[in-house]
Amino acid sequence: MANAKEVELLGLWVSPFVRRVEWALKLKGIPYDYIEEDILNKSPLLLRLNPVHQTVPVLVHGGRVVSESFLILEYIDETWKHSPLLPRDPYERAMARFWASVAESKVLENAWIAMCSEEGEEKERAIELATEALGHIEGVIRGKAFFGGEAIGYLDLAVGWVSLWLPVWDEVGSMKIFDQAKYPATAAWTGRFIEHPVIKENLPPRDKMVVYFRDKRSRIMASKSHA
Amino acid sequence: MANAKEVELLGLWVSPFVRRVEWALKLKGIPYDYIEEDILNKSPLLLRLNPVHQTVPVLVHGGRVVSESFLILEYIDETWKHSPLLPRDPYERAMARFWASVAESKVLENAWIAMCSEEGEEKERAIELATEALGHIEGVIRGKAFFGGEAIGYLDLAVGWVSLWLPVWDEVGSMKIFDQAKYPATAAWTGRFIEHPVIKENLPPRDKMVVYFRDKRSRIMASKSHA
Repeated sequence: MANAKEVELLGLWVSPFVRRVEWALKLKGIPYDYIEEDILNKSPLLLRLNPVHQTVPVLVHGGRVVSESFLILEYIDETWKHSPLLPRDPYERAMARFWASVAESKVLENAWIAMCSEEGEEKERAIELATEALGHIEGVIRGKAFFGGEAIGYLDLAVGWVSLWLPVWDEVGSMKIFDQAKYPATAAWTGRFIEHPVIKENLPPRDKMVVYFRDKRSRIMASKSHA
Repeated sequence: MANAKEVELLGLWVSPFVRRVEWALKLKGIPYDYIEEDILNKSPLLLRLNPVHQTVPVLVHGGRVVSESFLILEYIDETWKHSPLLPRDPYERAMARFWASVAESKVLENAWIAMCSEEGEEKERAIELATEALGHIEGVIRGKAFFGGEAIGYLDLAVGWVSLWLPVWDEVGSMKIFDQAKYPATAAWTGRFIEHPVIKENLPPRDKMVVYFRDKRSRIMASKSHA
C-alpha cells in the first residue's frame, strides 16, 4: 500500500476528468495528496509536469508523472492490482476502452459544444451526435447493474460524468441531451452510481457547478463573438 | 497459435491505421485473412461489425470484433503474449500510450488538416502544431534504436506512419512538416524502422499513395469550397 506522501494528484474541483481519477484512487483505497490547480493561471508545477497538454489531472507517483485521465486509470489499475477496474478478459477490456472512448469523443465532446453554442445548426448537430452516441451507451448498460458488471469498473468511471455533469450542462445550455425517459437504463445506472458511497462523497456541489459552467459558457461565447 | 481462419482483418491498403495492426500481427506471427474494404462504398459487413465508427481497421478473432487501431494493438498484445509490444512496467506502458496519443492527435491530425488546406492561416497553424508535437517525439526517440528500446514495440507501430505517410503528405500538401534536418533522431529511426523485414514487406507503394492522397485532397478541397 502506498503511503500518503507517495501519490499526488493535481486537479480541479469541477473537472470530470479529475474526478474519475479520484474515484479510482478512493475505490482502491490509495491515499494521496490533492493539489488544486487554478486552470486560468496555471502553476509552474503543472507546466513542468505536463508541458504537452498543460491540463489536469496529473498523477505523480514516487516521482513518476502520468497525465490524461484514461491513461492514469490504466496506470492505477496496473500498479495497484487489487479491486481491478478493467476486466481480465482481453475482449472485455477492449470493449470497456472502446465505449469509454465513444462516450468521451461523441457524447462528452458534443455535449460541451452544444452547451457552448447559441440556438442554431451547430447546436442542433452537436445535440444529435451526442444523443445518438448516448443511445449506444444505453444499449451497453441495459440489463446490468454497472458497466463493470456487479461492481463499479473502468467504464463506470469513464462514463460517470453523465450522472451529474451532463444534467448540469443540459441545464446551463437549455437543452436536454440526457432525457431520462429516452435512456431509462442509463438513468437507472446513474442512480446506482451516485449512491455508491465512494462516488457520493466525491462529487462537486451541483449549485457551484451550475455557476461555474454558466460563467465558462458566457466567456466562451463572448470569445466566439469577438473572433 | 491461431489458425488462419481464426483471425480476419478488414482493411484499406493505404490506411496507416490498418498497417499498424498488420505490422503487429506479422511481428507476432499471427496468421490472418485480410479483407480489403472499399471505403467509398462501405460493405454491409463493415457496417455491421463497426456500426459506431464505420471505419477500418476491424479485427475479428473467433467471432469477437475489435475496432480502433490502438485498441486492436492492446487486444493483440493481451491475447498473444509472446513478443510483447507494450513494455511490462506500468509507467513505461503509460508513456508509450501517451506518446502514441500525442503523435495521433497532434502530429497526424494536424498534418492531415495541413495537407488538405490551401495556403493561409489554417494551414500555417496546423503545420505549427504538427511540428511542435514532432519536436516532442524527437525528444522521446533521441538516443534509442526504437521507441520500444532494442526492438519495435507499440509506440513504433503507432508512430510508424511518420516514416512513409508523412513524407507523402508533405509532398502532396507542398509543405515540409517532417524536415529531416530538424528532426535527425526521428529521421534516423524511420530509416531503421522501414528496413525492418516485417515493415519493409508491408508498406504500400509510394507512387500509388501519392496518387491516392492527391485525389483525396482534391475531393476534400472541392467539398470545402462548395460548403
